[in-house]
Parts: sequence; structure tokens; C-alpha cells
Amino acid sequence: MALLGDLVLTHDTIVEGVHYLPTDPPESVGWKLGAVNLSDLAAKGAVPAGALLSLTLRGDDLWEERFLSGLEQIFEHFGLPLLGGDTVALPAGAPRVLGLTVLGKAAAHVPSRSGGKAGDRLWLIGPVGDSAAGLAQLSASPKATGLLVDTYRRPIPLLTIGALLAPHAHAMMDVSDGLLLDARRLATASGCGLRIDLSALALSPSFRAARGNDRAARLFAATGGDDYALLAALPAETDPLTILKGTAVNIMAVGELTRGGAFVLVDDLGPVPLPERLGYEHDLP
Amino acid sequence: MALLGDLVLTHDTIVEGVHYLPTDPPESVGWKLGAVNLSDLAAKGAVPAGALLSLTLRGDDLWEERFLSGLEQIFEHFGLPLLGGDTVALPAGAPRVLGLTVLGKAAAHVPSRSGGKAGDRLWLIGPVGDSAAGLAQLSASPKATGLLVDTYRRPIPLLTIGALLAPHAHAMMDVSDGLLLDARRLATASGCGLRIDLSALALSPSFRAARGNDRAARLFAATGGDDYALLAALPAETDPLTILKGTAVNIMAVGELTRGGAFVLVDDLGPVPLPERLGYEHDLP
Repeated sequence: MALLGDLVLTHDTIVEGVHYLPTDPPESVGWKLGAVNLSDLAAKGAVPAGALLSLTLRGDDLWEERFLSGLEQIFEHFGLPLLGGDTVALPAGAPRVLGLTVLGKAAAHVPSRSGGKAGDRLWLIGPVGDSAAGLAQLSASPKATGLLVDTYRRPIPLLTIGALLAPHAHAMMDVSDGLLLDARRLATASGCGLRIDLSALALSPSFRAARGNDRAARLFAATGGDDYALLAALPAETDPLTILKGTAVNIMAVGELTRGGAFVLVDDLGPVPLPERLGYEHDLP
Repeated sequence: MALLGDLVLTHDTIVEGVHYLPTDPPESVGWKLGAVNLSDLAAKGAVPAGALLSLTLRGDDLWEERFLSGLEQIFEHFGLPLLGGDTVALPAGAPRVLGLTVLGKAAAHVPSRSGGKAGDRLWLIGPVGDSAAGLAQLSASPKATGLLVDTYRRPIPLLTIGALLAPHAHAMMDVSDGLLLDARRLATASGCGLRIDLSALALSPSFRAARGNDRAARLFAATGGDDYALLAALPAETDPLTILKGTAVNIMAVGELTRGGAFVLVDDLGPVPLPERLGYEHDLP
């Protein structure tokens, strides 16, 4: 994510077998490539302005048509024009690498990750866990269906909500690698500590039916990733329910930024030991 | 290539084994990824403003460091800031796919490919053939060295020249796939025919030493591609030598746009039959 003048710039690249399953429907791969970039814009409160696609071809016309139709669907849904890009051939058998650059018009105030202050409340908007639970179902059975699988395949970036919250947020980011990991990133960037209350997570009925509602289920939801939710640090006196009135989503006060560097995790039963894995850590240098 | 407000946007993706040789020095791969995008900006007369990199990693740190140092070199040379991007892991053995989005500040007049008019002179700026001759030397012997190999590995995008010519050009593009192919694209987009005089090509001394100066050598130079030259359609009364005074490059009046759709190729000896292959046609749908 970068800023250039009044533009927010984002680029995400996804790799077959790394970021999506070769068995995923191509339409959903196209949709998700759009969603992952648009979710970055949402976290900045930006309005979609245009996109450039990097498309690699492997001679499977049907796959590529279906991928493009999924991409077009999300572009139409959010009014994002495809302005250009590049199309290149891959050697036979190479995994697909698909890239998208998205430009958005920035709002007057662009919240960063680093603007949070001790005492800010942390608000989570959008469900967490559903997508990871859907992926787990697909890993067990590639023919799995249902709401969790749908959420994994067709995540909805929260552009309207991001634009409404941005003017009020000290810091904001999208939760894509797991709530605990991303919340720690926001706190670290802001020079703060962190307290998260797992019992504040509103788990969806589908999630609870599939994985239950205990501490283990909540830890799974808070570390699974692929959520496309927003995490905002708001001054304690700011009420996002008022700001977001009329937009029907899950809004949860999941914790707060604190003085010092500690990360404290609790639930209704008391302190929760931090899991070894806080989220999806990319295999990067 | 796309326009958004006063920005010129370009994205190019290169694939190992398709757009560059696995034996190419990684620094030159980084340099060329920058050059291919900056050459697109040059053809629009735009000033570099920022870039987003899509980097795929395969666990070879040294390759990746060297690639990035080549990219940084060209970014520094042309004052292009790296604003962001994405870094992702590749499965073992997958060919690298490297993408770059570059944004440029547009000039008041942005020449397209389609603005040429019958009667315009076609001016070629920059040498053609050197890069293809260098690639041929490397294909014969991976240890080949010399000016032609240097030109293949370290092409120079003509940003200053593009910016100077843009206000005067009816149409302009960069010659990257071969002069004959790209000139036909410009003529077709402009609804014109085309006359090219092969004998007007100023071949470099290195090129002539390697491949000679006859019709076959000139056809090789005019169809080889990877040139990073500029092709501009200027009104007959416009003298680019005056406009470009002080910028030391090859400037050649290589032909003209004509009424009707014919493509006429000539040299000192008379008409030249069009070769079957006019340049590097990408393997695309």
C-alpha cells in the first residue's frame, strides 16, 4: 500500500498452490484477486478509481475466461474500471501468477497502521473465522459447499464501511492474515501494547455449527486469516455504531491499545496463553 | 498503457525463460524490468512518478538481491521512487514471474498510437538491431560480451527525448517488438498506410561488424525487437533535429504514413518483399 498525491496504490500478487487451491473455481480466484486489493483500499477509506491486471496464460482458455468473468464481477460490483495491464505466456506446467494493481482516490484523512494511541478502542468489523473454516472444509473435501465455503471463495471487501470510518480512525488496517497477528502489527506500528478479548468475537452461526464456540474455536477464528475484515483504532469516546448506522455488519469492540509493549489475550475464563502461531505468516525474507 | 487523470499507468510482467534467459545476470533482469516500463512512459512524454513491484521469491537470496540491485540502479538513474508492491513465495522449481507497475506524470499533450495522419513523417529515435544481435550472440555463446550484449542487457529508455517530442507528435510509441511490426501497429491504429525505407536505418558500427550491412542485416535489425527506441509520427514540416538539439542520439527519417492501408517496404535497391515475420509476436489470444 502506498500513497501518491491523492491516490492510494495497492498491488497484490497471488500464486496457484500458494494463495489459492488449484481446485478453486476460476471465477472465485478472479473475485478474490479483486477483493484482496479492494480490501486494502477499504482500510484507507479510498474510493476505487482504476486497475491494471497482470495475467499469465497457460493455454487453458476456459480457465482464463472463467477467471476473467469473476474479476469482472467484482469490478462491476464496486465500480472499478480495468484500465490496462499486461498479458504474458507461461512455460508449460508453470504455476499461474496473477497480479493486480488498484488505484483509489484517497479521502481527506488516510488512516495508517501507525496512528493508534494508548487508550484507543480496537473495533473489528466483519466476521472472522468463516473463511478459514471454509478452507478447512474444502481441504477435508474439495466438494464441500455452504456459507463458510462461500465466504472463503467470495469475500466482500468493506469499502463503504472503510470510507465511513476513515475520518474517525487513529489507525486502520484490513485483517487478512489473522486477527491476532494483524492487531499486533497495528499495535507495534503504533508503539503501543495490546489487549484483546476473545470472548468479544461474534462468531457466525455457520462457524459455530462447524467448529463450536469454545476457546479453541475462538483461537482458530482469531488466527485463521483470509478474513477481509477491518480493524480500527478509535478514540474511546467515538461510537462506530453511530457512524455506521444503517450498514448491517458485525461490529465488535475486541480490545484496546495500551501503554507499553505487552500483548494480553483474555476471554471470559481469564487470561489466554498466546498461541505460537498468531496468523498466516508469509514465507518472506 | 492507460491514463487516469494526469497520470500515465503502465504494467509489464516478465517471465523467466520467456522474456529473459535464466542465464542472464539478475542485475540486468532488474534493469530491464524497469526499462520496459519506463520506455512506455517515454513514448507518452511522461515523467516517472512512482512504481509498485511484484516480486516472486524462490529461496535464492543472492539472485533476488542482485535483481533488486539492478532494479534500484535504473530507479535511481531515472529518479523513480519505489512506493510499494507485493512479495510472494513461489513453489519450488516454478519459473519466476516479475511484474512492475509504473506511474508517470503526463505532459499536457499525451500522444497515442492512433493520432498519425497521412503525410506524417515517421522518425525513429535510437538504434535498432543491437539488442537482437546481442541476444543472438548470447544464444550462440552464453559467455559472449561486448557492446551488443550490453545493449541487450542494459537498454536505455529514452525519457528525455520522449518528453521533448511528445508536444509535437501526432502519434508516438516505443519500438519494442520490432520496427516493422510496431510501425504497422501505429499505422493501423491511425487508419493509415505505411512506407518504410530500410536504407534509412543507421546501423551501429558494432551491429555492422557482427551482421553486416546488406538487406538481410537490415531486415534483421528492423524485425529483431527488444529495442527501446521511439517511433514518432510528426507533421512533414516539423524538424525533430531542432527539437532534440543537444540530445545525442540516432534520429532517422525511416518513412511516412500514407493514404490507404498498404505497407510498402523499400531500400536503395528498390521494393523489398515484406518478411513473413515483422517482429516479435507475443503468444497471446
